[in-house]
Amino acid sequence: MLNEADIGKKAVGEEAAKYVKSGMKIGLGSGSTVYWMVKKLGELVQQGLDVEGIPSSNQTADWAREFGVPLTNFSKVDQLDLTIDGADEVDENLQLIKGGGGALFREKVIAMAAKELIIIVDKSKLVKHLGEFPLSVEVLPFGWEVTEKKIALLGCQPTLRKKDQEIFVSDNGNYILDCAFGEIMDPKKLHEQLKLIVGVVETGLFVDMANEVIVGNGNEIEVISQ
Amino acid sequence: MLNEADIGKKAVGEEAAKYVKSGMKIGLGSGSTVYWMVKKLGELVQQGLDVEGIPSSNQTADWAREFGVPLTNFSKVDQLDLTIDGADEVDENLQLIKGGGGALFREKVIAMAAKELIIIVDKSKLVKHLGEFPLSVEVLPFGWEVTEKKIALLGCQPTLRKKDQEIFVSDNGNYILDCAFGEIMDPKKLHEQLKLIVGVVETGLFVDMANEVIVGNGNEIEVISQ
Repeated sequence: MLNEADIGKKAVGEEAAKYVKSGMKIGLGSGSTVYWMVKKLGELVQQGLDVEGIPSSNQTADWAREFGVPLTNFSKVDQLDLTIDGADEVDENLQLIKGGGGALFREKVIAMAAKELIIIVDKSKLVKHLGEFPLSVEVLPFGWEVTEKKIALLGCQPTLRKKDQEIFVSDNGNYILDCAFGEIMDPKKLHEQLKLIVGVVETGLFVDMANEVIVGNGNEIEVISQ
Repeated sequence: MLNEADIGKKAVGEEAAKYVKSGMKIGLGSGSTVYWMVKKLGELVQQGLDVEGIPSSNQTADWAREFGVPLTNFSKVDQLDLTIDGADEVDENLQLIKGGGGALFREKVIAMAAKELIIIVDKSKLVKHLGEFPLSVEVLPFGWEVTEKKIALLGCQPTLRKKDQEIFVSDNGNYILDCAFGEIMDPKKLHEQLKLIVGVVETGLFVDMANEVIVGNGNEIEVISQ
């Protein structure tokens, strides 16, 4: 039995798959909502849909193989037609926080490489201002302690992400600092301040990137556009 | 027999070692000029100098072990007293291009973590404006092709660095794009534009970081300060 949030995730995941047209190259995001989209896409491929995807995580790559969605990569594909991904928070201006799953860098690459970015979330992810969800910042392992101090000067207490008592390592071999800034009133400025710090690879702030957000409220679906 | 450039490198490397006082934690740069500094430091340690260094490359770490310079790391040391490193170009304002050796990221971390940065070069590295030496930009492997295109839009033709026919991989597991911009009139601006691109880890532009440059001209030494 799916709970209400899961029903919403499934509904928007399947809805988003309808945006994929034959011949498209698409970016496959990460996370539990994207799971349903990839599963649905596998069904459509079975029915003849011609599509290739670039996954943003090893987990998503595994799902794509499981459900029969053909994969490609940036050595073969210049540009993506569409990227579909989840988010941890979406604000009123369609600015996003992503990175709860640790795949923020590759998610940002497939978002940047796409003509269009569609975000799929259940309604619990909608917020007035970003920042209740801690901001993930990917940093290089060498000297991460120095990088952490510079980040803290911007007004937060970073926490090194761990998993099973061990330091969490991203698919890129880097660390994640979870940074609780509280309400983020100027996402663009904060992103730029963070990105300019030596050692910061990428931040979970996706600013002016989403074209459309599909929101699931149980089985009801709402589409918010820029 | 050392050629004239090597004589200059040896002279400034040994000169720089004199700046190291007992009790200091120092950042050890990379490259052929730093080699002479680390070698001299090893002699001073033999004579009783109490010092610990953080190396900016595996190569420098090997030299330190060979010459008996004790090493430490950022899990034990908050801040460095002094970092000594080479450069590929030094302009009239002591702005630098570094990265020819591929260690630019770790070099920038040890520079940032130090109270003072001393640069050691032979006089062939002095230039009026930076940019004759191609600018090294470290990028993440995933989607580097996308990152490369964004960099090219800033006005250069990036070249993926190779070594022995294989893609060169930095000590951090990343790639290097060598970007021939020609004369760089505003190093700070270019650095920031590059660093904000998704996939860029770090650039070889070291802006407002060097406190002092020791220049070797054969056996003659000149010191330039900010």
